[in-house]
Amino acid sequence: MVTTTSSADEHMHNIQTVRRKVEHELKLNISVAELSPLHQQRLLYIPRMPPLLRGAFRVAFGDRTSAAYDVEEIEKRFPKLFGQPVVKIVPNSGGPVTIGKKLRIGVVLSGGPAPGGHNVISGLFDHLQERNKDSELIGFVNGPSGIIDCNYHILTSESIDPFRNQGGFHLLGSGRTKIETVEQFAMAREAAKKCELDGLVFVGGDDTNTNAMLLAEDFKAYNIDTKVIGVPKTIDGDLRNTYIETSFGFDTAVKVYSELVANLGYDASSAKKSYHFCRLMGRSASHITLETALQTHPNMAVIGEEVEANRQSLLSVVSDIADLVVERSKLGKDFGVVIIPEGLVEFMPDMNKLISCLNDHLASNGSSSNDPTEAVKMLDNQERELFNSLPTDFQTQLLLDRDPHGNVRLSQTESERLLITMTKSELKKRSEYKGTFSAISHFFGYEGRCSLPTNFDCNYCYALGHTSAALIEAGCTGYVATVSNLTTLPEQWECGGYPLTVMMNMERRKGKMVPVIKKALISLEDPAFKIYAKQREAWRLTEDYRCPGPIQHSGNMSEELNFTLVANSEMSN
Amino acid sequence: MVTTTSSADEHMHNIQTVRRKVEHELKLNISVAELSPLHQQRLLYIPRMPPLLRGAFRVAFGDRTSAAYDVEEIEKRFPKLFGQPVVKIVPNSGGPVTIGKKLRIGVVLSGGPAPGGHNVISGLFDHLQERNKDSELIGFVNGPSGIIDCNYHILTSESIDPFRNQGGFHLLGSGRTKIETVEQFAMAREAAKKCELDGLVFVGGDDTNTNAMLLAEDFKAYNIDTKVIGVPKTIDGDLRNTYIETSFGFDTAVKVYSELVANLGYDASSAKKSYHFCRLMGRSASHITLETALQTHPNMAVIGEEVEANRQSLLSVVSDIADLVVERSKLGKDFGVVIIPEGLVEFMPDMNKLISCLNDHLASNGSSSNDPTEAVKMLDNQERELFNSLPTDFQTQLLLDRDPHGNVRLSQTESERLLITMTKSELKKRSEYKGTFSAISHFFGYEGRCSLPTNFDCNYCYALGHTSAALIEAGCTGYVATVSNLTTLPEQWECGGYPLTVMMNMERRKGKMVPVIKKALISLEDPAFKIYAKQREAWRLTEDYRCPGPIQHSGNMSEELNFTLVANSEMSN
Repeated sequence: MVTTTSSADEHMHNIQTVRRKVEHELKLNISVAELSPLHQQRLLYIPRMPPLLRGAFRVAFGDRTSAAYDVEEIEKRFPKLFGQPVVKIVPNSGGPVTIGKKLRIGVVLSGGPAPGGHNVISGLFDHLQERNKDSELIGFVNGPSGIIDCNYHILTSESIDPFRNQGGFHLLGSGRTKIETVEQFAMAREAAKKCELDGLVFVGGDDTNTNAMLLAEDFKAYNIDTKVIGVPKTIDGDLRNTYIETSFGFDTAVKVYSELVANLGYDASSAKKSYHFCRLMGRSASHITLETALQTHPNMAVIGEEVEANRQSLLSVVSDIADLVVERSKLGKDFGVVIIPEGLVEFMPDMNKLISCLNDHLASNGSSSNDPTEAVKMLDNQERELFNSLPTDFQTQLLLDRDPHGNVRLSQTESERLLITMTKSELKKRSEYKGTFSAISHFFGYEGRCSLPTNFDCNYCYALGHTSAALIEAGCTGYVATVSNLTTLPEQWECGGYPLTVMMNMERRKGKMVPVIKKALISLEDPAFKIYAKQREAWRLTEDYRCPGPIQHSGNMSEELNFTLVANSEMSN
Repeated sequence: MVTTTSSADEHMHNIQTVRRKVEHELKLNISVAELSPLHQQRLLYIPRMPPLLRGAFRVAFGDRTSAAYDVEEIEKRFPKLFGQPVVKIVPNSGGPVTIGKKLRIGVVLSGGPAPGGHNVISGLFDHLQERNKDSELIGFVNGPSGIIDCNYHILTSESIDPFRNQGGFHLLGSGRTKIETVEQFAMAREAAKKCELDGLVFVGGDDTNTNAMLLAEDFKAYNIDTKVIGVPKTIDGDLRNTYIETSFGFDTAVKVYSELVANLGYDASSAKKSYHFCRLMGRSASHITLETALQTHPNMAVIGEEVEANRQSLLSVVSDIADLVVERSKLGKDFGVVIIPEGLVEFMPDMNKLISCLNDHLASNGSSSNDPTEAVKMLDNQERELFNSLPTDFQTQLLLDRDPHGNVRLSQTESERLLITMTKSELKKRSEYKGTFSAISHFFGYEGRCSLPTNFDCNYCYALGHTSAALIEAGCTGYVATVSNLTTLPEQWECGGYPLTVMMNMERRKGKMVPVIKKALISLEDPAFKIYAKQREAWRLTEDYRCPGPIQHSGNMSEELNFTLVANSEMSN
């Protein structure tokens, strides 16, 4: 999976890189004395990207588009912008490098942080500066609420340089506010006018990009001349489709988790006395768990989408785990590694039903009710039985950890501990089992959201930043910036934009049908899943743990692509 | 802290390295197709070490030694071996490279795994092979119980090569059995005779090295001609003294944890809504927490030894944390990072007393008692009040999670959750506090014990392996192998051995006074602590998080030493 290039190309690339590195170092606007050596080194990294983004390009418009599903309804919701053409950035062969327009662009980071966000910003900034020194980049603070409150900074080299190729979203901060109400839309229009924005870039997941599309339509309807562009971010990897090859941050985050899970495999096989149960982030989709499985070869990985496809109950999953423990124990192995996705219980039909009944009852009780056990009394027999069969800790979590809407806060429920407790009980019923079951629980999520981005995420995000600015200059609005052909060299990547409407469908949210971007769940037909399904049997009873190691930021090892991206690209080719 | 060398030296070193790398690759006895690229690359890494270990050396004996404390008593316990001289491996200038004796050496890995263990083994193996092709290395399986059961493999290139520079202890497995009873000592003597061992190398922490010394004395007393050598291992960093500059594994493990803690710092300052409370391994000593603090600059680090020195109660530590939260909240910052050592509650005089009372009562109840709450009834008023003030979860953990001796299993108690719960309560009492306290708990420990060792740990362990074999060939027994001068280039490291008795004192264990190696706790006078104490005030209210990043295995970044090692070496110079 290491990308290669011809030596002549490589030579040219190296010369250009060295030259730019020296220029870059000279202009770096920060004191580096207090930074860690790797932090300093990463500040000097020059992201690789298609050379055409550096000026000699033009924007080509393709055919009119449609929507993924519910075409009529989507068209009705977006009368102004539905059906816009695909946009591609192409070489302006023979034409001169033109000076760009003077632009004022706003950027906002939305939702959970993901490695690479700062490079979207530096990409935007550099593109604007390279095209026209008088352009300005405005950073809205703490997520979309920064737009509503008109809370922003004008970004300069001084403010951006210390964040080049660094993890986190802390240059601007992030937030989860959405622009939803009539008042909020009005305030966003005011902000766009007040800040004289030519464009506004939303960096976020499926919800944020949906929100960007709604705002683009709203601006158009009110004749606000601010173009709105989305950038696909999420470590979960579920913002991906025919148009978006991967969301940024996934590559880095899975590699952080994979290193840790692999270490736990070796820990299990060294100490030989414990199972490590690891829950990994990814609530709606199990891409992180699947990629981590391919990277590390755990004894068992539970994939939510497969559990759902097979309509497996909680007890059935527990029984599978107990089978593994019993079989390994027969070989004298009372240790191993099991990984599960954060959203696992939501994929189980029985638990899903229980949770949605609880949510309904909790909601109907209203937040004024202090006694959530009332909701349990209102359950049907079947659900009440399931609820009563759960360990007390977990019952408490289901009832007490509720989000601001009153819903069960599943991301906080410790399903890895639930599985450990229930596996223990299940093993007591297995008369053939003579082993000792000791298990240690782990949750890996927050650790990977702000880590130093891989070279892939640095390059990808930097190109996304450039592309977003180019789309705005070309007058595009209601588009997601795309960089594709990602399994080739960054110099060969293709850049452009797809109308956000092409990836939308209608879904029920809070009781209403609304247009949203369809989340990409794992399909059992996905090449990545098939590769896993073919190998997993071999991992069950052996210790075929694979050691990807920590992310390397220089040398050959720094150019490794993740399995999911490569497998998916093979599917589309 | 990057070590440097003159360019001529570097050039020579490079030529030698390249030449050896090619030889090494040709002789590598494994199929690498299924391994990750970094795994493959690390297999080819040639550890750096003092060139004199490659043959042109002799062993020099120094002055007679004594013990750290309780000299008379230690001498009485080790009548045969007390007072042996310090041993140094020195260049055999002018002398020929002699062919070594044909030796048969056993090696055993003991206790929790630590990065680098496999390089002790490859160092031992290569040393034996380089000195005499007919020598044999025997690996005892699953810890010291492998000796008692005479369960071993003869190690060959085929078995060792796939583990070079790799993390984990899984080549042999580890275990926590000690050789303690009269029968176990007799069985160990039998094993030594049956396997015709010239030497036996114990890779382990303070307890294991104490055990090695007892066995050395026993073998001597029974005229068993097997030399016993200890190798200082522990990620906790508490096996360290005038003679041992650091234990192996600490360097790698702290760097794994530091990357994660730093990521959480950026996560906190990006999302701006949560505190991350991280408990870090290190039960008896807080070196890991201190080093992680120096690497990452958290808003607060609680150092167990300081809590003990100041005789801080649980409530007092909670109050300190609440002060931090209140002060940050006044600045609009309801987020941050707090790190604590695994063994924190044991350093609090009130909690320590409570736990030891509970242990006494639980022990006097015997394991037959099914009702641990009886032990609570037997507490004095003051302890019972403290117990009752603890959150219910934590009460349950204290009573139910008990080790095989019936003692409270503190490593499993989630003190980070205890502090979160109690901080929440404390904040309710602070009328000036208007913020929102949301906290996420983490425990980092197992993730770092088996990770790919840093170049430092690879080199250090490889040199320790060579040194151990050299000591055995020179007829030394009851020594710890030492490699010192560690902040210089590996080529300039000094190798030798210290009699294990020099670092012993008498301590009460299970009601009896026994000779043990004194654990190295943090002293408030340690340079590393002083550096931290001087800086920490600046970290409280800012987000001066430092990003060490993931461990890099090649390039300049791979040669970074940890702060604790450098600071301590400055103390001794």
